[in-house]
Amino acid sequence: MLGEIIAQCRAVRPLLHCITNYVTANDCANLLLACGGSPIMADDPDEAAEITAMCSGLVLNLGTPNPRKIRAMMLSGREANRLGCPVVLDPVGVGCSEMRRNAGRQLLAQVRFAAIRGNAGEIAALAGGAALHRGVDNDAEQAPAASARENALYLARESGAVVIVTGDTDIVTDGRAVYRVHNGHPMMRTVTGTGCQLSALTGAYVAASPDRPLTAALAAVCAMGLCGEIAHARLSPGEGNASYRGYIIDAIFHLTPENLERGARYEAEQ
Amino acid sequence: MLGEIIAQCRAVRPLLHCITNYVTANDCANLLLACGGSPIMADDPDEAAEITAMCSGLVLNLGTPNPRKIRAMMLSGREANRLGCPVVLDPVGVGCSEMRRNAGRQLLAQVRFAAIRGNAGEIAALAGGAALHRGVDNDAEQAPAASARENALYLARESGAVVIVTGDTDIVTDGRAVYRVHNGHPMMRTVTGTGCQLSALTGAYVAASPDRPLTAALAAVCAMGLCGEIAHARLSPGEGNASYRGYIIDAIFHLTPENLERGARYEAEQ
Amino acid sequence: MLGEIIAQCRAVRPLLHCITNYVTANDCANLLLACGGSPIMADDPDEAAEITAMCSGLVLNLGTPNPRKIRAMMLSGREANRLGCPVVLDPVGVGCSEMRRNAGRQLLAQVRFAAIRGNAGEIAALAGGAALHRGVDNDAEQAPAASARENALYLARESGAVVIVTGDTDIVTDGRAVYRVHNGHPMMRTVTGTGCQLSALTGAYVAASPDRPLTAALAAVCAMGLCGEIAHARLSPGEGNASYRGYIIDAIFHLTPENLERGARYEAEQ
Repeated sequence: MLGEIIAQCRAVRPLLHCITNYVTANDCANLLLACGGSPIMADDPDEAAEITAMCSGLVLNLGTPNPRKIRAMMLSGREANRLGCPVVLDPVGVGCSEMRRNAGRQLLAQVRFAAIRGNAGEIAALAGGAALHRGVDNDAEQAPAASARENALYLARESGAVVIVTGDTDIVTDGRAVYRVHNGHPMMRTVTGTGCQLSALTGAYVAASPDRPLTAALAAVCAMGLCGEIAHARLSPGEGNASYRGYIIDAIFHLTPENLERGARYEAEQ
Repeated sequence: MLGEIIAQCRAVRPLLHCITNYVTANDCANLLLACGGSPIMADDPDEAAEITAMCSGLVLNLGTPNPRKIRAMMLSGREANRLGCPVVLDPVGVGCSEMRRNAGRQLLAQVRFAAIRGNAGEIAALAGGAALHRGVDNDAEQAPAASARENALYLARESGAVVIVTGDTDIVTDGRAVYRVHNGHPMMRTVTGTGCQLSALTGAYVAASPDRPLTAALAAVCAMGLCGEIAHARLSPGEGNASYRGYIIDAIFHLTPENLERGARYEAEQ
Repeated sequence: MLGEIIAQCRAVRPLLHCITNYVTANDCANLLLACGGSPIMADDPDEAAEITAMCSGLVLNLGTPNPRKIRAMMLSGREANRLGCPVVLDPVGVGCSEMRRNAGRQLLAQVRFAAIRGNAGEIAALAGGAALHRGVDNDAEQAPAASARENALYLARESGAVVIVTGDTDIVTDGRAVYRVHNGHPMMRTVTGTGCQLSALTGAYVAASPDRPLTAALAAVCAMGLCGEIAHARLSPGEGNASYRGYIIDAIFHLTPENLERGARYEAEQ
């Protein structure tokens, strides 16, 4: 099942429009090329919608935001919706500033997402923001007491997106089915942008298999985690996070459907 | 002949002002250091012309554009022309949006370029745009039926620049002589920014040998392609596009005049 | 003594707000993760102060500046001062344009820095600017005849910051004590952003040991230089500046207090 997603992406070679942060833009671009996709980075409102219209997927990443870039995200997000082109959101640090909270809220209100990926804090902030937007108790944003799983389920139901929460165990849910993924390696946290890369990968897989967003998201999470494991096994003494960074992308480059089927470690909730 | 260009660049150590995209800026900077040059990246109109005035070459790259950056390109381009400092244009995705098409047209109208490098589509769009600007049939932009070679010749004659079209075979022409370069490896397409890097390298070689732009451009194209071959030969199993990315820059770092003379594979049209 | 700084940073895991250039942002982020810190990059005035308030250190880097980013630096710098959070300045190319000179002057006038790191030219320009700001002879900016050591002492006394001047021999001074550091390798000059990375590392060490800025800065300078040596020793034939780039960060990742104590080569002026 997951293997087909990879094969489909290599066959379709989706072009992805990324509005993303400048810290990890290069890694996201090389990751997209590694998985068989192709990136266009463009973040100005004057061209955003036009670029989106050329592409088969859109990835919005909230890192290093500014008002122009957020406006570009709105324009591109709406254009993608209009054209039926799947959109992925990575709400980087969405709880960290009023600007990001507002951006998160506005994006959820105006754009329909195929998938949303964040860590537990980001998904909690976004779930709180979604609640807020619907007039739900303010406390939801201040104190999202709910577990990562509950926030993910809530956000998935409210937004209609497949929600991915990354952490020690990753969660993938469309609001009904819930998967837990056990792939990955703790050292991935020492490489900046592995989360951004997973969001880009999700964008590529969903763009190539738009009718199966849940499976595509699950494949992306398993693939990224598995490649973190493969890359870690390749490290020799003296090699650190910089070498590891390259090896993860190398592993995506070589990942086959068969390897993913064999290496994916996930379970569905009963 | 080509070896002298490399030697000259290492001797002169040209300082290059790059107004470039943030996706590949780091690779372009390290590539420039690898070939013996030195980069300054600065993209704000408030300082653009001042930075250009310190440098011996200017590289304008249309990736991740915005109106401020395009204004900076105009100011720097004109200042470079005033000072006799060679300018290289990389019209990244110039056909993809109205903003980029306008920028391309304006740059061609107001700045004299020593060299322009793009893929077949970019050069076609730019050749169409040049035509348009001169009142030639609108269809030229919509349907550049002409081959890459013809577009390159046309653009070189119209602009006075040496034009490089990269593809399976690369073309280098000053509007009279036409060279075809057979160096390179298909895997270079899986590394983001190898085109941007070639444009930066062309900038360094032309800045160090401003009286020989055609030879300098030819040397850059052969050098980049040859280094793509050298880097590919260095790949071991498990290494993918991320390792390849670093190996290409490493190869430029070690490239000698002799290696280039031996490895360059090009032919002049009779 | 220096070993404690490293150990403290790995224990505290400081969160660093970086307002920095897009050329080397990825390397700075991975360097911070390598030394045990954690980065947040954010450069818009609308969120700058809020992001700073979450962090235990702030690094301001003047590369690829624009007016919005400079405004963000002012807001974040003042907020950091208000909260007692240490600030590090990297005045990249501060002498190269009026915009950068003004930014340098304004930052020195309005923000209290724990440390400032630049090359001899940058520190001279900044020392001249500091003088200017205080009504001292204009010539100071035009012709800083003083040696790097004198400029560093002057700037340290005027600003209250620990000043680091990097070069063949590095200088570290708080305006009284002066250290000379002999670690490092000339090939570090062929990697873009090793200076930016040292400034980020200084930010992490000072944030984790805010009461000992001089020792923290000295530890950062020795650590970066030593890792340049370790990384150079790891290079095999065919490897160039791109491989070297990664190896330096890898070396920081593996650097232990004991290795630093053993490898640091510095002397205090008598």
